[in-house]
Amino acid sequence: MHVETISIGSELTSGATVDTNASWLARQLARLGLAVARHTTLPDSMGPLVTHLRTLSTNPARPALVIVTGGLGPTLDDITREAVADAFDAPLQENADCRQVIEEIFRKRGWNFAANNLRQALIPTGAEVLPNPRGTAPGFYLARDDVHVFCMPGVPLEMFGMFTEQVAPRLRQLTGGGTVILERVLHTFGLGESTVGETIAAHMERGRNPEVGTTVADGLVSVRVRARAATEAEALAMLDLEAQALAPLLGETHIGNDDDRLPQVVARLLAARHETLAVAESCTGGLLSKMITDVPGASAFFIEAAVTYADRAKTALLGVPADLIRQHGAVSEPVARAMAEGLRSTAGTTYALSTTGIAGPTGGTPTKPVGLVFIALAGPRGTTVAQLNLPGDRDRIRQRAALAALNLLRLELLKPE
Amino acid sequence: MHVETISIGSELTSGATVDTNASWLARQLARLGLAVARHTTLPDSMGPLVTHLRTLSTNPARPALVIVTGGLGPTLDDITREAVADAFDAPLQENADCRQVIEEIFRKRGWNFAANNLRQALIPTGAEVLPNPRGTAPGFYLARDDVHVFCMPGVPLEMFGMFTEQVAPRLRQLTGGGTVILERVLHTFGLGESTVGETIAAHMERGRNPEVGTTVADGLVSVRVRARAATEAEALAMLDLEAQALAPLLGETHIGNDDDRLPQVVARLLAARHETLAVAESCTGGLLSKMITDVPGASAFFIEAAVTYADRAKTALLGVPADLIRQHGAVSEPVARAMAEGLRSTAGTTYALSTTGIAGPTGGTPTKPVGLVFIALAGPRGTTVAQLNLPGDRDRIRQRAALAALNLLRLELLKPE
Repeated sequence: MHVETISIGSELTSGATVDTNASWLARQLARLGLAVARHTTLPDSMGPLVTHLRTLSTNPARPALVIVTGGLGPTLDDITREAVADAFDAPLQENADCRQVIEEIFRKRGWNFAANNLRQALIPTGAEVLPNPRGTAPGFYLARDDVHVFCMPGVPLEMFGMFTEQVAPRLRQLTGGGTVILERVLHTFGLGESTVGETIAAHMERGRNPEVGTTVADGLVSVRVRARAATEAEALAMLDLEAQALAPLLGETHIGNDDDRLPQVVARLLAARHETLAVAESCTGGLLSKMITDVPGASAFFIEAAVTYADRAKTALLGVPADLIRQHGAVSEPVARAMAEGLRSTAGTTYALSTTGIAGPTGGTPTKPVGLVFIALAGPRGTTVAQLNLPGDRDRIRQRAALAALNLLRLELLKPE
Repeated sequence: MHVETISIGSELTSGATVDTNASWLARQLARLGLAVARHTTLPDSMGPLVTHLRTLSTNPARPALVIVTGGLGPTLDDITREAVADAFDAPLQENADCRQVIEEIFRKRGWNFAANNLRQALIPTGAEVLPNPRGTAPGFYLARDDVHVFCMPGVPLEMFGMFTEQVAPRLRQLTGGGTVILERVLHTFGLGESTVGETIAAHMERGRNPEVGTTVADGLVSVRVRARAATEAEALAMLDLEAQALAPLLGETHIGNDDDRLPQVVARLLAARHETLAVAESCTGGLLSKMITDVPGASAFFIEAAVTYADRAKTALLGVPADLIRQHGAVSEPVARAMAEGLRSTAGTTYALSTTGIAGPTGGTPTKPVGLVFIALAGPRGTTVAQLNLPGDRDRIRQRAALAALNLLRLELLKPE
């Protein structure tokens, strides 16, 4: 089956949800054995979407599956309904059930009913309604001459639910099984992409099955393994085998797979050992703490964080001697050490992590340039301090510093007790 | 000029940089009067990109501009160079300057030289090299029969720099002026998208110039205004006029424009008043503090944050009486109030914000369900507490709670002194 996804972007400038949707859908479709041949983002005006949908009728690849996200909202620039109706000659009709559902949502939540919401009850003739229990915009499914078009709202949470509950079961029926493509991603931290690629070069030949590639995202270099097989069990076995071969090559830099990134790995190790953590942040300004508490259940081991942005806070909350800061500067090895040790002692936790550095864009000096960061880990076996010289802008320096601190803790937790 | 952008995604599943690049490019191109007609994400295999590039020769829209990002890395799945060479019959040749630059980068940084990095010195015959002072992969520019192809690395920081320094000047020459399209985005907080749309409906008619639309991203409902004019000055004047007409309709919900979101607005107001802020976070777990310190120069007003995840930390760091927590629970109006007031007093700041709530997915009860959050602001005029009942998942609840806290402070700072 030829598979395409389309995002209706607000003139392509609206930001992150477009790609969140496209990548999420690509992963879900892969699990159903469907590889996305192309993703297209179109502006929120009728013409380009109508043209794009019409070219599907001249494309000989059949059956074809097209999943459109976005453009189903209540406002005039939400054009997906009209474009599909136009491209497939399926005039819009008000759907009484949809109208009732929308009116009820507004009544229940006590919102003022804005009349333009009724636009969301319009559905192309012949289309099947896909209910949306998480929002006001229903989706729909239109099948024409072996071209299957699914339209879903662009709000990720609503789309994820609608795909899982409404679209995936219909796709399973349409495809009737066939090839299964499964993917596993091995995340690494500490080496550059080209070094990782060189390390596993023998696995990265084109045309292999499983196929292996590398990507860089969110501060990690990740190795992506994709297996094609007749059944899920077979594909899974192939992934297991390939991961077993790759892991020793990646060694200690291999932090985890799929959704298992540094915060999740550290959380699991700490919870298993019934140990606790506190965090003293300066340059990362709450990011390290935020990453840790992104993990549901972090309260089992995470006691507190002190974001001591001002020097006086470092002294008052962490007991860092004012003299030490005067002598070495807030961004220094001794202050990073004192922050971690001070917090570990007042919070009474097994471990304490600290960060202090110059995230920029200003504040750098010749001896302490932007990107200079000290991270420290205080624990039962003493304190470790590491100096980092990070490239990039403020966001990237903060992200890398927080990840490096988590990795310092991960490596400590992996040592034999 | 017909304009397209193409991202080479790692099988479309690699995450956020793809869309970061596409949206950033769309905004930059708009400033040059170029509207992106289509963005396409293709898997990192040769075939689809070659086909896509070849269809440009049959597309009558000329001149055509194509900007490709990604797929220029050192590994075998980086296929952009080969695909362009193939589609335009411009065989790859090693560029001696590029080779020298790459070897020097490795020498300087003391990295091991991985031989596959030399792939990055291969350039299609007849293409012009676009230097990359921020990384190892150079870009290139190939012009053929009025089709202009620019290829840049996918790493956002490298691409942003290369576009600004190398691509934009060439595009200015190519277009020789013409229509200028400028955009302004008015961010709002507090109303749903359909209510905002209804409020400004008269401005959202299709075909108007400036064109007005709404989008939802990062917890804000934003109104996007796009003006087309012959000169930049004319377009700017149109934007100013339209923004002046929209602002009174949006009223107090209008928080700022373009890059001015809640953290930036609050930062500017606090800095102007020489006032200070501390933050006590429970359910937001560092996110509120992270949002504030995302703003460069936050150290001018931001003193500290206490992320008191454990109840004992609320008592030790914020002086919240253990009895109060026992009596009302950690997620309660009195505890939110005590957190803010306690921190304001120990940190000695003008204002203190606090958050306490149930972010889920577990931990909810019939009387205190997931999504129940209390936020408090303690300041010179006393303490305000607000109760929120937020829909969505853990990430969304935390995000909305942090934004609502910032908005509480914003509204206080806007009151006449």
